[in-house]
Amino acid sequence: MRIDKLAVIGVGLIGASCALALRAAGGVSRVVGVGRSQGNLDRALARGVIDRGVLLADDWTPEVADADLVLIAIPAAQYRPVLSALGNVLHERSVVTDAGSTKQDVVLAARETLRSRLPQFVPGHPIAGNEHSGADAGDPSLYVGRQVILTPLPETSPDAYALVADFWTACGARIARLDPARHDQVLAAVSHMPHLLASALVSELASRKDGAEYFGNAGSGFRDFTRIAGSSPEMWRDIALANRDALLVELAAYRTALDALALSIEHGDCAALDTMLSRASTARRQWGETAGGIAASASAAK
Amino acid sequence: MRIDKLAVIGVGLIGASCALALRAAGGVSRVVGVGRSQGNLDRALARGVIDRGVLLADDWTPEVADADLVLIAIPAAQYRPVLSALGNVLHERSVVTDAGSTKQDVVLAARETLRSRLPQFVPGHPIAGNEHSGADAGDPSLYVGRQVILTPLPETSPDAYALVADFWTACGARIARLDPARHDQVLAAVSHMPHLLASALVSELASRKDGAEYFGNAGSGFRDFTRIAGSSPEMWRDIALANRDALLVELAAYRTALDALALSIEHGDCAALDTMLSRASTARRQWGETAGGIAASASAAK
Repeated sequence: MRIDKLAVIGVGLIGASCALALRAAGGVSRVVGVGRSQGNLDRALARGVIDRGVLLADDWTPEVADADLVLIAIPAAQYRPVLSALGNVLHERSVVTDAGSTKQDVVLAARETLRSRLPQFVPGHPIAGNEHSGADAGDPSLYVGRQVILTPLPETSPDAYALVADFWTACGARIARLDPARHDQVLAAVSHMPHLLASALVSELASRKDGAEYFGNAGSGFRDFTRIAGSSPEMWRDIALANRDALLVELAAYRTALDALALSIEHGDCAALDTMLSRASTARRQWGETAGGIAASASAAK
Repeated sequence: MRIDKLAVIGVGLIGASCALALRAAGGVSRVVGVGRSQGNLDRALARGVIDRGVLLADDWTPEVADADLVLIAIPAAQYRPVLSALGNVLHERSVVTDAGSTKQDVVLAARETLRSRLPQFVPGHPIAGNEHSGADAGDPSLYVGRQVILTPLPETSPDAYALVADFWTACGARIARLDPARHDQVLAAVSHMPHLLASALVSELASRKDGAEYFGNAGSGFRDFTRIAGSSPEMWRDIALANRDALLVELAAYRTALDALALSIEHGDCAALDTMLSRASTARRQWGETAGGIAASASAAK
């Protein structure tokens, strides 16, 4: 696969890593970056992430309309004006994809804005990232061995789907395909819940008068459990709101599990604690030996 | 500080790492290991962790009674017979410490068993460890830069306290001092809760019929949040039961925080989500820059 012109809207960790990965694979000739901050675009230019930068506040559409592939890598809550503009100007042969953490809201926005260009849109979500942000955080190996979930619509053109799948494969990723609603359910449980649960713990401790003594005695278990709580509040607020229904289901299921745990501890119920802890330990160790677990662990060494 | 004879009761990750660290610092002449399994003792001998191994099932007391320092590094639920035996045979100048994750239960057991030797006991808890176990996991650098909490009793001899503090310092650790009840409160929040919360999430997902699809789409956030769920179920069951009262308080506080979170999501309350997520993000980033956070993060690279 070779793309002549790639447009990356949002040159942060995700977008910059894609551009660098595709460049490293020799899969692209020119990269145009569109972003909110001139400083970040300048850094992306200096690092060779992009060849040309345009501000979102300026008229960026002429630079993007004829791109072979447009990757939207900004927070999903900010998609609508971008998609609307693309719906007006996008060439017939251009393909659009995105990297948003939720998919039903993105699909809804695309349906309402892209109109005749809807078949050219392939919603996607790379299961990769870290707590860093900005073009400086771009890493050409971010997607190696990682999973990218594509959630095509009934209308999605098979050629558009194939191009986006090839694009991610060239970046080193594996492709999975899910229905948008199922994507949001699954990610609520394995991604959004861990983030919110870790943040809730840290926030609760930080609000205590004697919080410093708690943080002062925290070790490596706390470090790993809470790493994701250091992520962008803005991004996770948007995800929590966008995936509201699935998250409320997951939160209810989790609170039921915690109620059972509290009862087990209160009553000294060894057998119930053993069952829960053993099931968790076995499942976690098994997951660590799967392709996804191995890829996720390999990236931990960085 | 130089110890002539160190006795390590329980030659697992914690005990073996102490022995190796003290040897590396040139702080010990002889190490006797006492353990449940001949295979593990043999591996500890082969790796040079100990000079002599004795089974707990045999009469180990003559080998340990005259040690300068006895480190108990077995699960706290198994302390009583060991402490009882020590109460009967321990020499007057010997010092005993331990590495248990809870301290009020240990103090109670020591009061009921050590009798006239109680002033020679210095309860302790190194805030270090990982998901590995056994003598093979022993690592001389496990404690470098990490915190060790000592919880001396009113009766504890200052000389015994000084020896144990010097011992951990020689292993590379920093010493903190807490009251046993305060230790259990603080560790419930920053150590036991993260373990139980991660295990509850993994166990709940593993119990779903379609659990494989959830695990198959999990990434690095899930990896870190759940790493501690792979730990020994037996050990964490014992900790949960030993620290029952403090854990029930923490679980109740956490459920209140989750109820507030669910309400914020349900009502689309941006401001409440921003407050919670920003407080968590700021606190987590600040903690990462403290001595404890840096030490914890340095060990992540291994």
